[in-house]
Amino acid sequence: MSLKLSAWFLILLQIHLSSASDSDPLHDFCIPRSEFSSIFLSCKNSSLVTAEDFVFSGIRTPKDYSKTGFSSIPVSSSVFPGLNTLGMSFVRADFESGGINVPHYHPRATEIAFVLEGTIYSGFVDSKNRVFAKVLEKGEVMVFPKGLLHFQMNIGNSRATILGSFNSENPGLVKIPSAVFGSDIKEEVLVKAFGLNGKELAKLRKKVSSY
Amino acid sequence: MSLKLSAWFLILLQIHLSSASDSDPLHDFCIPRSEFSSIFLSCKNSSLVTAEDFVFSGIRTPKDYSKTGFSSIPVSSSVFPGLNTLGMSFVRADFESGGINVPHYHPRATEIAFVLEGTIYSGFVDSKNRVFAKVLEKGEVMVFPKGLLHFQMNIGNSRATILGSFNSENPGLVKIPSAVFGSDIKEEVLVKAFGLNGKELAKLRKKVSSY
Amino acid sequence: MSLKLSAWFLILLQIHLSSASDSDPLHDFCIPRSEFSSIFLSCKNSSLVTAEDFVFSGIRTPKDYSKTGFSSIPVSSSVFPGLNTLGMSFVRADFESGGINVPHYHPRATEIAFVLEGTIYSGFVDSKNRVFAKVLEKGEVMVFPKGLLHFQMNIGNSRATILGSFNSENPGLVKIPSAVFGSDIKEEVLVKAFGLNGKELAKLRKKVSSY
Amino acid sequence: MSLKLSAWFLILLQIHLSSASDSDPLHDFCIPRSEFSSIFLSCKNSSLVTAEDFVFSGIRTPKDYSKTGFSSIPVSSSVFPGLNTLGMSFVRADFESGGINVPHYHPRATEIAFVLEGTIYSGFVDSKNRVFAKVLEKGEVMVFPKGLLHFQMNIGNSRATILGSFNSENPGLVKIPSAVFGSDIKEEVLVKAFGLNGKELAKLRKKVSSY
Amino acid sequence: MSLKLSAWFLILLQIHLSSASDSDPLHDFCIPRSEFSSIFLSCKNSSLVTAEDFVFSGIRTPKDYSKTGFSSIPVSSSVFPGLNTLGMSFVRADFESGGINVPHYHPRATEIAFVLEGTIYSGFVDSKNRVFAKVLEKGEVMVFPKGLLHFQMNIGNSRATILGSFNSENPGLVKIPSAVFGSDIKEEVLVKAFGLNGKELAKLRKKVSSY
Amino acid sequence: MSLKLSAWFLILLQIHLSSASDSDPLHDFCIPRSEFSSIFLSCKNSSLVTAEDFVFSGIRTPKDYSKTGFSSIPVSSSVFPGLNTLGMSFVRADFESGGINVPHYHPRATEIAFVLEGTIYSGFVDSKNRVFAKVLEKGEVMVFPKGLLHFQMNIGNSRATILGSFNSENPGLVKIPSAVFGSDIKEEVLVKAFGLNGKELAKLRKKVSSY
Repeated sequence: MSLKLSAWFLILLQIHLSSASDSDPLHDFCIPRSEFSSIFLSCKNSSLVTAEDFVFSGIRTPKDYSKTGFSSIPVSSSVFPGLNTLGMSFVRADFESGGINVPHYHPRATEIAFVLEGTIYSGFVDSKNRVFAKVLEKGEVMVFPKGLLHFQMNIGNSRATILGSFNSENPGLVKIPSAVFGSDIKEEVLVKAFGLNGKELAKLRKKVSSY
Repeated sequence: MSLKLSAWFLILLQIHLSSASDSDPLHDFCIPRSEFSSIFLSCKNSSLVTAEDFVFSGIRTPKDYSKTGFSSIPVSSSVFPGLNTLGMSFVRADFESGGINVPHYHPRATEIAFVLEGTIYSGFVDSKNRVFAKVLEKGEVMVFPKGLLHFQMNIGNSRATILGSFNSENPGLVKIPSAVFGSDIKEEVLVKAFGLNGKELAKLRKKVSSY
Repeated sequence: MSLKLSAWFLILLQIHLSSASDSDPLHDFCIPRSEFSSIFLSCKNSSLVTAEDFVFSGIRTPKDYSKTGFSSIPVSSSVFPGLNTLGMSFVRADFESGGINVPHYHPRATEIAFVLEGTIYSGFVDSKNRVFAKVLEKGEVMVFPKGLLHFQMNIGNSRATILGSFNSENPGLVKIPSAVFGSDIKEEVLVKAFGLNGKELAKLRKKVSSY
Repeated sequence: MSLKLSAWFLILLQIHLSSASDSDPLHDFCIPRSEFSSIFLSCKNSSLVTAEDFVFSGIRTPKDYSKTGFSSIPVSSSVFPGLNTLGMSFVRADFESGGINVPHYHPRATEIAFVLEGTIYSGFVDSKNRVFAKVLEKGEVMVFPKGLLHFQMNIGNSRATILGSFNSENPGLVKIPSAVFGSDIKEEVLVKAFGLNGKELAKLRKKVSSY
Repeated sequence: MSLKLSAWFLILLQIHLSSASDSDPLHDFCIPRSEFSSIFLSCKNSSLVTAEDFVFSGIRTPKDYSKTGFSSIPVSSSVFPGLNTLGMSFVRADFESGGINVPHYHPRATEIAFVLEGTIYSGFVDSKNRVFAKVLEKGEVMVFPKGLLHFQMNIGNSRATILGSFNSENPGLVKIPSAVFGSDIKEEVLVKAFGLNGKELAKLRKKVSSY
Repeated sequence: MSLKLSAWFLILLQIHLSSASDSDPLHDFCIPRSEFSSIFLSCKNSSLVTAEDFVFSGIRTPKDYSKTGFSSIPVSSSVFPGLNTLGMSFVRADFESGGINVPHYHPRATEIAFVLEGTIYSGFVDSKNRVFAKVLEKGEVMVFPKGLLHFQMNIGNSRATILGSFNSENPGLVKIPSAVFGSDIKEEVLVKAFGLNGKELAKLRKKVSSY
């Protein structure tokens, strides 16, 4: 009997939220109960909700930089539960001099990027393969339309920082180098798609996976 | 004949855009033709669109401060046409020491507010009249759920700046003091609603309208 | 063992629904199971659903009147579960002669108000602080755009009744007097926002809270 | 020259609005310019908008009754332009004693029906062909889920009136008898679909078309 | 104790999913856990998801034909869980020579129908009762606008097949003959709505129910 | 005068539609007027609409094959105006033996792909870079979640055909090889993002652009 009950608990704890979507909310807010957020969608009783639930303090400083001189802290509703059902999220992105944010896209959101510090070469590619790119100075803002491929590079001599915001609580992120050459897409598909031979592809895969 | 034609032009020039809504876009982007944006909804031929259309440089410095020590630059799609159909907009808000952003709400959007500089007392009121407020330091973020009343005050000794972003290209703004006491709502309604006498109301209206 | 199980039940019973949003439904209907509606989102087996689930009889007579001569019965999906996922709700509002519905707004819906009985002065304020108000007679209808501040007053000699409907199953309600002066917004914010001194504010707060 | 210009005007006047959809509005409101509403989607300059634009007075009395003892006044945004972009509309329906509102559905909206007067037998059919029907008395409310087939009959001895509201500014209306037997659906399709012979079908078509 | 626990399990197993709606998804995908899909909305841990979850093999051959010479396999998210939250579903429809798909509609989706094989007379009725119908050959495509009544008949000498796709994971299906004459709508309503006498109605009901 | 008028016409003819979005339609349908579709959003008078407006016959045979042995005919609302406002579109894709549909994504839609003929290796990459791929036989269906990168290869010995449908009237298409290596993204960004040297990049760009 006790075993059965424990099993029930264990099963529940493995379930992950399906959740709703970025439409109009149905409540003022819905702070997920932390002990159940991995089990099913449920809001804390509003009397237990406090101002802290709506404040996020984790992007005051950058994290470690990657090999490409880039560091980012994406803040979706899984990290900042106060965003749940509210249709927005954000990201802090830091660049060492020469650092890049590789070509990527967000499958579920438009992004507005503010330059907090530094000089950033920033651009996106539309679905006709036209590039719209420009050097942004501190205080300038660029918009990346929903789902389009975009990239950034710090072309200044000191560190640079961007603050991005999204119109989805979970915009998603697909980084082209790792999604294409760091994943298990069948070799033959990539060889044909990019006009590479097997050796060239292997080299590319190795480089990308070493990041 | 010429008169008729001119009339036609004049009439057209007075028409204002009805426009769509904050749903998924149907195109990569749609930069309104500047010469017609006040006439009807139409996109520039994409070959005429440039990177500049997606960059906004008008919030690098604050505007003049109001009597309440506050200055804001809202950037919706009417100011930054690159946002058209993309479902997002933003605002820069500056506060003198002690300056306040009066209780207000955005009828069509959630807001994410980042503290760029300073120390801000910031909060919102839910629909049960509970206040969720907190002091935010530089680098902290607070979310104001869609349509809820919120406010901010610079409680530091120097100027403070907030960057807000919205999940609507035109979130709207209703400032409570001016919407209630600065508008032409019938005196009797306000007298009864706020338990004031006519003299008290007149004083309140005068103060609010002097801002 | 038994304790553990009871704890599990108790925890579940405190959870409140996060829920979906006012988009297209995915089913013909979804009547929440009454025994679990406070636990998680689940529909009654449709074979247990009856016509009664789609009928509401609780607005045939008004409730008690408030000090402002007003009585309202809001009917959202929490009161009338048949509305769940269907994107609509409604309200009955009654006014004594001279009674008012204080300036308020619904953060998540447009409202259509039908005058069932009486003569009502009714209006809303747009985001440029312009008032659109008019005297409505029995049988007339007024629309209050989504999220805008509106108000009503019975200017006839007998009781009046309005039937409102909303395009959200939970439109929300923010009453300005109580949200602003009946809540715990920091005194300093209100003093500055409305140009009041502390004494005047205290008086206003006292009056509003006595309602 | 003058001919060319006139042609241009004539062409424009034949164009009908494509329009947007029932999502969140992008403006407080958008009253279509009456002189152009048949040409293209454009809002009146808001300074020309008045309170009258948001009030509708055309449902104070019923229209003529049909052969089935029924009269309805649907009020969508084409009749009441103030509803434009606001995602709601409504209808007044009157029934003589024994009068019926034939089985029909609204392809784009849920409906909430309030009984203003009388006793109405009212119901809907779900997609498993189950009927949910009930006698409604004055002051009761029934909800008809989006797109489902529903019907009403006045089973009282005096006239009855219903007020319906919809969560679309143009819900649409498909009346089954006329859509199926009053339209030009190929005879063979109907003969097979309803198990009729040609003569029976002809009789049915004749009856329905005589309404 | 054990009884109580079992009861708890039994109750849970009867609950049916309320679920979300066809808006933008919040995750890449959400494969419901098969053991809980009937209990509450929850996604499989993505590490347990495989390619098989996104592939459906059940429409390679038609099912049995009905009396009207028609066979259909609707594939919504309840049959193919990989569609969950993705806003699409599909159907395979087969017709014997002369077979018909009776007048019906989908309350929650537009349909695109591709003719895979054969010659199909296909059409829909708009809300003004106008019929738009045409003979489609193999390889042709017809669109049926959201919620409108449509029908099809194989007018060729051999079997025909159509592939339909929908912009909802659960479009719903209302077949007019069975919803109107095969359901329990009160006799009096149908008699009046279709101008039938009781005997004619009884005959029609009998025929439809024999399908 | 005449010149001015002509100028007006010319300007109008260059304007491109901004358009709405994939929400619920507001009308049964809206067939754009062909003479104005490039000017502004307007529907044909419905009396001029015919069944032909809802039928598309252009995918009965494949187009020419590309160097990668692939041919596709995307059918969005710009090609098939009957889809306007209806939230769906489709594509026919043909593969020579060994032909590939290069890694690509649709920024605005989920896709359902039916194998009409042949044996197709088909897969997608989620935002954690996991590949979900499988060999599909004739009659099988695979779903590609909104915005995720996917690809296909004909691994059979004869030609293969896929029919795709989308839940947007204009899903968009971003082909990774040409968007990344066939566009004008700054060399330095690509060199760093993919760990290439300038020579390797130049080679890759040349290959991709030769397609």
